[in-house]
Amino acid sequence: MYRAIHQKLEALRSHKAFEFFVIFVIIISALEIGAKTYDLPDLALSATQILDAFITLFFVFELAIRFITEPNKKHFFKSGWNVFDTLVVVISLIPINDSEMALLARLVRVFRVLRMVSIIPELRVLINSLIKALPQLGYVVLLLFIIFYIYAAVGSFMFKDINDVLWGNIAISMLTLFRIMTFEDWTDIQYETMEVYPFSWIFYMTFIFFTAFAFLNMVIGIVMNVMEEEHLKAKQEKHGVEPSMTELKQEINELKQMIKQLSEKA
Amino acid sequence: MYRAIHQKLEALRSHKAFEFFVIFVIIISALEIGAKTYDLPDLALSATQILDAFITLFFVFELAIRFITEPNKKHFFKSGWNVFDTLVVVISLIPINDSEMALLARLVRVFRVLRMVSIIPELRVLINSLIKALPQLGYVVLLLFIIFYIYAAVGSFMFKDINDVLWGNIAISMLTLFRIMTFEDWTDIQYETMEVYPFSWIFYMTFIFFTAFAFLNMVIGIVMNVMEEEHLKAKQEKHGVEPSMTELKQEINELKQMIKQLSEKA
Amino acid sequence: MYRAIHQKLEALRSHKAFEFFVIFVIIISALEIGAKTYDLPDLALSATQILDAFITLFFVFELAIRFITEPNKKHFFKSGWNVFDTLVVVISLIPINDSEMALLARLVRVFRVLRMVSIIPELRVLINSLIKALPQLGYVVLLLFIIFYIYAAVGSFMFKDINDVLWGNIAISMLTLFRIMTFEDWTDIQYETMEVYPFSWIFYMTFIFFTAFAFLNMVIGIVMNVMEEEHLKAKQEKHGVEPSMTELKQEINELKQMIKQLSEKA
Amino acid sequence: MYRAIHQKLEALRSHKAFEFFVIFVIIISALEIGAKTYDLPDLALSATQILDAFITLFFVFELAIRFITEPNKKHFFKSGWNVFDTLVVVISLIPINDSEMALLARLVRVFRVLRMVSIIPELRVLINSLIKALPQLGYVVLLLFIIFYIYAAVGSFMFKDINDVLWGNIAISMLTLFRIMTFEDWTDIQYETMEVYPFSWIFYMTFIFFTAFAFLNMVIGIVMNVMEEEHLKAKQEKHGVEPSMTELKQEINELKQMIKQLSEKA
Repeated sequence: MYRAIHQKLEALRSHKAFEFFVIFVIIISALEIGAKTYDLPDLALSATQILDAFITLFFVFELAIRFITEPNKKHFFKSGWNVFDTLVVVISLIPINDSEMALLARLVRVFRVLRMVSIIPELRVLINSLIKALPQLGYVVLLLFIIFYIYAAVGSFMFKDINDVLWGNIAISMLTLFRIMTFEDWTDIQYETMEVYPFSWIFYMTFIFFTAFAFLNMVIGIVMNVMEEEHLKAKQEKHGVEPSMTELKQEINELKQMIKQLSEKA
Repeated sequence: MYRAIHQKLEALRSHKAFEFFVIFVIIISALEIGAKTYDLPDLALSATQILDAFITLFFVFELAIRFITEPNKKHFFKSGWNVFDTLVVVISLIPINDSEMALLARLVRVFRVLRMVSIIPELRVLINSLIKALPQLGYVVLLLFIIFYIYAAVGSFMFKDINDVLWGNIAISMLTLFRIMTFEDWTDIQYETMEVYPFSWIFYMTFIFFTAFAFLNMVIGIVMNVMEEEHLKAKQEKHGVEPSMTELKQEINELKQMIKQLSEKA
Repeated sequence: MYRAIHQKLEALRSHKAFEFFVIFVIIISALEIGAKTYDLPDLALSATQILDAFITLFFVFELAIRFITEPNKKHFFKSGWNVFDTLVVVISLIPINDSEMALLARLVRVFRVLRMVSIIPELRVLINSLIKALPQLGYVVLLLFIIFYIYAAVGSFMFKDINDVLWGNIAISMLTLFRIMTFEDWTDIQYETMEVYPFSWIFYMTFIFFTAFAFLNMVIGIVMNVMEEEHLKAKQEKHGVEPSMTELKQEINELKQMIKQLSEKA
Repeated sequence: MYRAIHQKLEALRSHKAFEFFVIFVIIISALEIGAKTYDLPDLALSATQILDAFITLFFVFELAIRFITEPNKKHFFKSGWNVFDTLVVVISLIPINDSEMALLARLVRVFRVLRMVSIIPELRVLINSLIKALPQLGYVVLLLFIIFYIYAAVGSFMFKDINDVLWGNIAISMLTLFRIMTFEDWTDIQYETMEVYPFSWIFYMTFIFFTAFAFLNMVIGIVMNVMEEEHLKAKQEKHGVEPSMTELKQEINELKQMIKQLSEKA
């Protein structure tokens, strides 16, 4: 009997309509979260609570089917997306009733919308290609952090007495520098310090040059590289790996050998 | 007699001077729309009304010629540009006299300027290459919308009591987030919420990272891809499809076979 | 005797030291222009007048040498850079003494600094590659202008009564839209119109999408293309034009024919 | 005995644990600098002084080991990174006790954090590729400087009487132009001058076009080029230099010659 149920579950899971229903429930849960940001009448509020319970149950059910129909149970948690789905479902199962924690309960439910990403293959590909770029991006981010840290320390030492709100300590200074990096009202900050240190524009100019310009270009370069590799891989999968020039040359050399032998024979 | 008219119309249509006259009328209609934004004397206003009637008539006339000279009537509306032209002409034919609707009547006439795009081939190519990039862009926009939605929900739940104008509900929050994405006075919003939640800078930093940086790079990557493909296609059309390395290798292998046979013969 | 002078001038012109002296004089003229923006004592002012006369004379002298030593006088004005140099020199020769025109006289002299571009070959290359991209950019700029024009007309019709300073007529509206395109205080403009038309955010969002995003990507694509072509050309000049795959295939086919004939002979 | 010490030092230097300890000390020195930006109790202040002395000593020790274990002493200072490390260590050895110079002493210590870059190979590669792009960037920066200089001179001549704070002299004008290039409150500056010169928007528009747009694209193009070359070089190191099309054609031609000879023989 277990077998029969297993087969039925598998048929259900791979059914196109079921997949669309999962997406439909995720959209409903997203809309429900959006609706909660408005001031709702009491009736609507109780409706969302019932909807919430149903969505939670459905997600548990859907995950259970996916787990049961997986032939090799060990492989299930090797997929990062399955781990992600399980985490989202388990966290939303934790009962949080205390009014103080109501905010937290709401926030946790927001993450359900992220399941949209794990259920649509094209979005998975986008996220995967971004994650693939991360190791290369890692060192750029580290370099940027070092530049931020040095400029924040210098800014904090020099401008602390001018404006304590912007340059009070190294953490606040880094936030101020991030603001400067986005060009947001950075001239006001500059004019303020230039009254005490007239040459402090060098501080801002070099910082903007190092971060906004140099960094952005590096990021573009890296993302480009990853995109290109993806593109190349897709092309190779289509046409098969093409022989290299070196291989062609070898082939021609073998030809020469053959003709030489033929020539000697004749 | 119908034949003679038909031939004359076709001669007219493909005449270079006629094409330039169409562009000239579109430019006149654009200038007329621009002139209407200024406070005009009564005389000029009546002049624009006469001009308006003439332009509308001319557009109907030009479209009629295009339709009549089309050998296969069914193909006419298969071209998106023809449908677009017809729509613009038909809409500007609807008589709107009510003073309340005067604004709408004006807006409709503005779209006539878009006919400039459909009449100049180089602009058509630009628009076509943009439309070709849309399916790939579609999923990036969906991913961005999900990020916006999640951050707007979180922002609405957390910051509603701090500033109802900026974070009142999920729709307003999304508008605020779009403002943050363009770096427009985003630090004011940040400083306001940091007074209540000192760690809310994490909210803004991660949002800016995910959207402005990651997204823009993806868009660049995709547009690049499409441009490259267009470029490649143009090159192939010029030189013909070049044989691949694999084909060359096969050719050389065939050579080897021939020499081997020759060698056995000798 | 004319011959002897001609040869001496040519020797002078191609002398490395002379080239550096020309650059030196241009830098001096640039510094003089910069110095004039400060409040100078009377003595310094008379010094700049003498310097001015000397620089003008020297430029005339240098241009004369270049013209005299040119073997084919007709080719001299075929080079855009020579025309540019002549224009700069001729304009700065026009005597402007009227105090009303003093500003104009100064502005004309500023353009002498541009001679730096025409004298340094690397800067010429940069400008040339930019000019080469212009025809392709032309249509993008036209498309952008059409988008601006349409949005400015719509904005002018709808928002004129809300804020006459920003949307008074189509010209002012286009300036306001350029401001929005650079994200400069655009939310203030948006919030103002949203009070009357709550859905006017669609106007701003679509405009920002069409211009800032789509346009910038197109520009990047085109500049990229030109850069790539320059790169390819430089590579081809180094290694000679490489044979195409098609040529290689033909060569191999000829080989086959030869072996076939050989085989028939044997 | 010297030999034995030498070998021990070399063993120490190439030990993985020692490398990690160096990174650990650099991180500690960075954290110490960060801590100093906060108001510390007296006890913590004395602790940082002791820590400071230890870090300085350790850096001297580590540099000495690197110098002693270098087989060829002359090569040591040929590496830019070694020169950089030595400079940082030597400068932080200079005793600065005067309270007036305390700020300078602190700033010098901040540069120790830069040693992080010289110790992590991946960051070195990033910096190297940036430095490699500099010569190409050099002329773009020169061109940009010329554009800035000309616009600053024009702006200073024309707008000095309108706003002395923004257009007082050529140096201030260039700072104002940099602000305009980052789109920071540039419309306020524009509206101010447009009251006197209604057509001054041409000044701002052309400047923004020349700098922000044209320049950024050039930078992207150059960085791209360098990245691509790096990528190509890495690929060639992996697969060896591939034969060119021309070489392949020559090989095939040699084949033809051989077959021709064979044919004549037969």
